Amino acid sequence: MNLIEEIKKRSIHVDKGIQEMLPITHPEELYKAARYLPDAGGKRLRPAAVILAAEAVGSDLQTVLPAAVAVELVHNFTLMHDDIMDMDDMRRGMPAVHVKWGEPAAILAGDTLYSKAFEILTNMDNDPLRIVKCIEILAKTCTKICEGQWLDVEFEDRGTVSEKEYLEMVEKKTAVLYGAACKIGALLGGAPLQVADQMYEFGRLIGIGFQIYDDVLDIVTPEEVLGKVRGSDIMEGKKTLIAIHALNAGVKLEIFGKGKASKAQLEDAIKKLEESGSIEYARSVAVSYIHEGKTKLNILEESPAKEILLAIADYMIERSY
Amino acid sequence: MNLIEEIKKRSIHVDKGIQEMLPITHPEELYKAARYLPDAGGKRLRPAAVILAAEAVGSDLQTVLPAAVAVELVHNFTLMHDDIMDMDDMRRGMPAVHVKWGEPAAILAGDTLYSKAFEILTNMDNDPLRIVKCIEILAKTCTKICEGQWLDVEFEDRGTVSEKEYLEMVEKKTAVLYGAACKIGALLGGAPLQVADQMYEFGRLIGIGFQIYDDVLDIVTPEEVLGKVRGSDIMEGKKTLIAIHALNAGVKLEIFGKGKASKAQLEDAIKKLEESGSIEYARSVAVSYIHEGKTKLNILEESPAKEILLAIADYMIERSY
Repeated sequence: MNLIEEIKKRSIHVDKGIQEMLPITHPEELYKAARYLPDAGGKRLRPAAVILAAEAVGSDLQTVLPAAVAVELVHNFTLMHDDIMDMDDMRRGMPAVHVKWGEPAAILAGDTLYSKAFEILTNMDNDPLRIVKCIEILAKTCTKICEGQWLDVEFEDRGTVSEKEYLEMVEKKTAVLYGAACKIGALLGGAPLQVADQMYEFGRLIGIGFQIYDDVLDIVTPEEVLGKVRGSDIMEGKKTLIAIHALNAGVKLEIFGKGKASKAQLEDAIKKLEESGSIEYARSVAVSYIHEGKTKLNILEESPAKEILLAIADYMIERSY
Repeated sequence: MNLIEEIKKRSIHVDKGIQEMLPITHPEELYKAARYLPDAGGKRLRPAAVILAAEAVGSDLQTVLPAAVAVELVHNFTLMHDDIMDMDDMRRGMPAVHVKWGEPAAILAGDTLYSKAFEILTNMDNDPLRIVKCIEILAKTCTKICEGQWLDVEFEDRGTVSEKEYLEMVEKKTAVLYGAACKIGALLGGAPLQVADQMYEFGRLIGIGFQIYDDVLDIVTPEEVLGKVRGSDIMEGKKTLIAIHALNAGVKLEIFGKGKASKAQLEDAIKKLEESGSIEYARSVAVSYIHEGKTKLNILEESPAKEILLAIADYMIERSY
């Protein structure tokens, strides 16, 4: 099975769905700003998870396509607002929305994606009770994402962050949307709540693994693949699982949070993190989340969709960027 | 009937509902920021409209209280984000959320109110089909509010704005939430769609009248009642219906959009607007919207709630601030 191809087969429908369900209408510039990031692509892992969860419980793409689009719009809404808060000026290789259109526009474009996501969910041809349940899941997920981003911003100003606090932040900021994607797909696909709950756990656990592994990639990926210098998280003083482990192990990283460092200083810091086992520790935690997540799919019968979901889980810790 | 008392009777339940449905939980500071504006009060006209619409179709407060809270949270969410965009540092006599907590916090607190509003709607004890319909109405309304705010921001940089454009902006930015409040209250109260649609029109029309009259109050209200200097809209160059009428009538307002003016210059400008009939024109347009709105309630049988809704309509153009 070619994972990228399997995702692509589904994401072309998501791309088309975004164009149809979020048309560029009056006032045009608002909708252009709202469509800018969704149109720029991304891996579409979350909408693919919605669709695959539905397929894995015996349903199909068409039944859940609006929900897949809604989840992708929520993801893009969080990117737009996060980029303002984090003052990140680039996204997907392009200027961020707030750089191109200004902050008020980026706030409004994000707010528009938010309401459109809920509107799209109400327009589905499905059992109203299941629709209400899915809206509840998405709304609660959005609240948790706000909590996660709040914690992430707050951690920047904190001297130390515990592993437990870090994991809570990662779960809320990243993992719950994967959980919601899988659960919503399963529910709209007709699965009983018990199955849908396991699907949520699958998404949540691999989402945590995904984010932890992202921090590993920042350090182990060669510059030419990463597209930026290795170890930028160390310079920025990000309290990743690697940094938390190293600090607890008494590793002294002179450049941590200093904002800049020479290549030699970075290489030296990375060497220390290797010696302290901090990188290996984070990798092993990521791997164990992925493995635990995969066991949750034991509740499903064998199917091509289940195989693809398992492959997505593996991809989380096998990808190179 | 004492209108303020009738609203108060209902809004105390809304106040309590906000505390229960949006508890201050972890991370506490996020929820404190989210609760800051809702707790500061305001007239609570929108949640009162939800409740009164339900009562007017034979239902009661308890049936629609969550929806009333949801509508009030959406209103407060728009205030938080608008204050960032408009760089308004004061709200309800207090520092705005972005002044007290910073912009990232104000964006997140607003986003949290947004998702909580939808979450609360999903938790109601009502027919799921009606709940889905109400979520759809609220989501579409939020999209329109974004469009309205976008137009408002855009108008600032424009030389001229037509009366039609101004009315579109006012309808979207302010009136549709009144329309949604009334329609949602009626629908959850068990009214047929045809009645609920008339309730929407009532809310929409009096909402437009409310906003136009707001611009009149900025000019005709004595400083000691308004709490700020009369005519600040003229100084700021706001394209209100009064300004649009005056510009079309060829009135020359030297201080328009200049940012500051002496008291004598302001008085002179106000005198010119009186002579050109621009203030009277805006007032008459506001009055006619209110009158048209009130006729929409002909579809309802007589009831105390209907009387209060009619009194709210009159209040829109009889209030002094």
